[in-house]
Amino acid sequence: MPTLSKPAKIVTAAMLAIGDELLSGRTKDKNIAYLADFLTVHGIDLKEVRIVADDQPAIVEALNALRHKYDHVFTSGGIGPTHDDITADAIAAAFEVPIDHDPRAINILKSHYAGTQYELTTARMRMARIPDGASLIENPVSGAPGFSIENVHVMAGVPAIFQAMLGELSPGLEGGERMLSATVDCPFGEGTVGDALGKIQKDNPETAIGSYPRHDGKRYMTQIVVRGRGQNSIDRAVKAIHKMLDELAS
Amino acid sequence: MPTLSKPAKIVTAAMLAIGDELLSGRTKDKNIAYLADFLTVHGIDLKEVRIVADDQPAIVEALNALRHKYDHVFTSGGIGPTHDDITADAIAAAFEVPIDHDPRAINILKSHYAGTQYELTTARMRMARIPDGASLIENPVSGAPGFSIENVHVMAGVPAIFQAMLGELSPGLEGGERMLSATVDCPFGEGTVGDALGKIQKDNPETAIGSYPRHDGKRYMTQIVVRGRGQNSIDRAVKAIHKMLDELAS
Repeated sequence: MPTLSKPAKIVTAAMLAIGDELLSGRTKDKNIAYLADFLTVHGIDLKEVRIVADDQPAIVEALNALRHKYDHVFTSGGIGPTHDDITADAIAAAFEVPIDHDPRAINILKSHYAGTQYELTTARMRMARIPDGASLIENPVSGAPGFSIENVHVMAGVPAIFQAMLGELSPGLEGGERMLSATVDCPFGEGTVGDALGKIQKDNPETAIGSYPRHDGKRYMTQIVVRGRGQNSIDRAVKAIHKMLDELAS
Repeated sequence: MPTLSKPAKIVTAAMLAIGDELLSGRTKDKNIAYLADFLTVHGIDLKEVRIVADDQPAIVEALNALRHKYDHVFTSGGIGPTHDDITADAIAAAFEVPIDHDPRAINILKSHYAGTQYELTTARMRMARIPDGASLIENPVSGAPGFSIENVHVMAGVPAIFQAMLGELSPGLEGGERMLSATVDCPFGEGTVGDALGKIQKDNPETAIGSYPRHDGKRYMTQIVVRGRGQNSIDRAVKAIHKMLDELAS
């Protein structure tokens, strides 16, 4: 009789990357891949990413679609001191809450700039605009904080600051049962193993089996990745893959 | 009296990148930035990018949202020979058209594999599945074609093949008036120029002025990018930026 196990706790997330420069080709995004790795470690499944321009209707529409659908939404970009930094205002509009200069954020900026050659200009004060009801995310790199409002975490686009802010969020993020994976290097191309691999996937429905082609300049090879939440089911699928490869090689 | 100019012809696009491996962190996407550059050259505005998993409902939902909203949609990934390559079937489902092995695609695969050590397995025949009504996109790298259906262009995820397929599409893509840009390197941080720059943006509404912080290890600097469709309006904004910088430096 099979053991009845508790269904795995699944925690989902989406990312919303904001910035004209990502869509024009000027800047190559580095935050998506970093967040993907970070969430995998935390047992949170990244299910969708969207990139939109610095355009309030586009940000509001994407944010409202994502925040109702996933447990967490992580945003990057648009929280600096210039006129094109409109993310905080767009988030407030999406949540339909007021936004103003936040006394906590003003204090952070005051003490940050007190120790520098820079003045707290009107432009820099823009970075103290925080929607009502948000909690701040500390920025150990350059002072100006990010913020979390309900399930939405709003962070800077500069990779060093994005990563530092994720580090600040990390202790408070409750993950689900972690996705485990195993990789099998396969000396054959996808087209050679495809039929047998499809059958192995059918026989191992608790796992998701992905195959990724590589070409070493001479011939095609495949990396086969088995993902799932149970080590036993992953081991079973990996064993079946090795058996298939032995048969193909003989 | 100002000259009345014809409104610029604007052509818009979205990208849909498909693949579990992009969301798990296993693979760092290289196609988004390439497409962004490609479309800028072609006078097509990339307005939105979405990344979704190899999951039919997720692909169908994203594709139907994007294809009705933008002039073109470019997809990457999920058209290989294994069970996790479900993009062609998902596209057919989104358009509600039948899908089967396409005689044109079968011929391409037959002649491609005839010249190799590989057989046209059932798995490889999967790559001949093309939705009804689609035209094929040639694949000069590895044979198996992509396809266009209405305003949706379906391409491989392997960057070399994605890029080659875009090259095939290129002559047939009609762009709009090209977005022009000018970059001004500014020796001050965003917070120092922010107030004045916001005023320059207000005075130059035909341009979009973006500012991007850099830190050289010692101090903050800013790249200011002016974008727009008229060289004269860009020149006016750039002149105003140089004037501001001169005033700040004096």
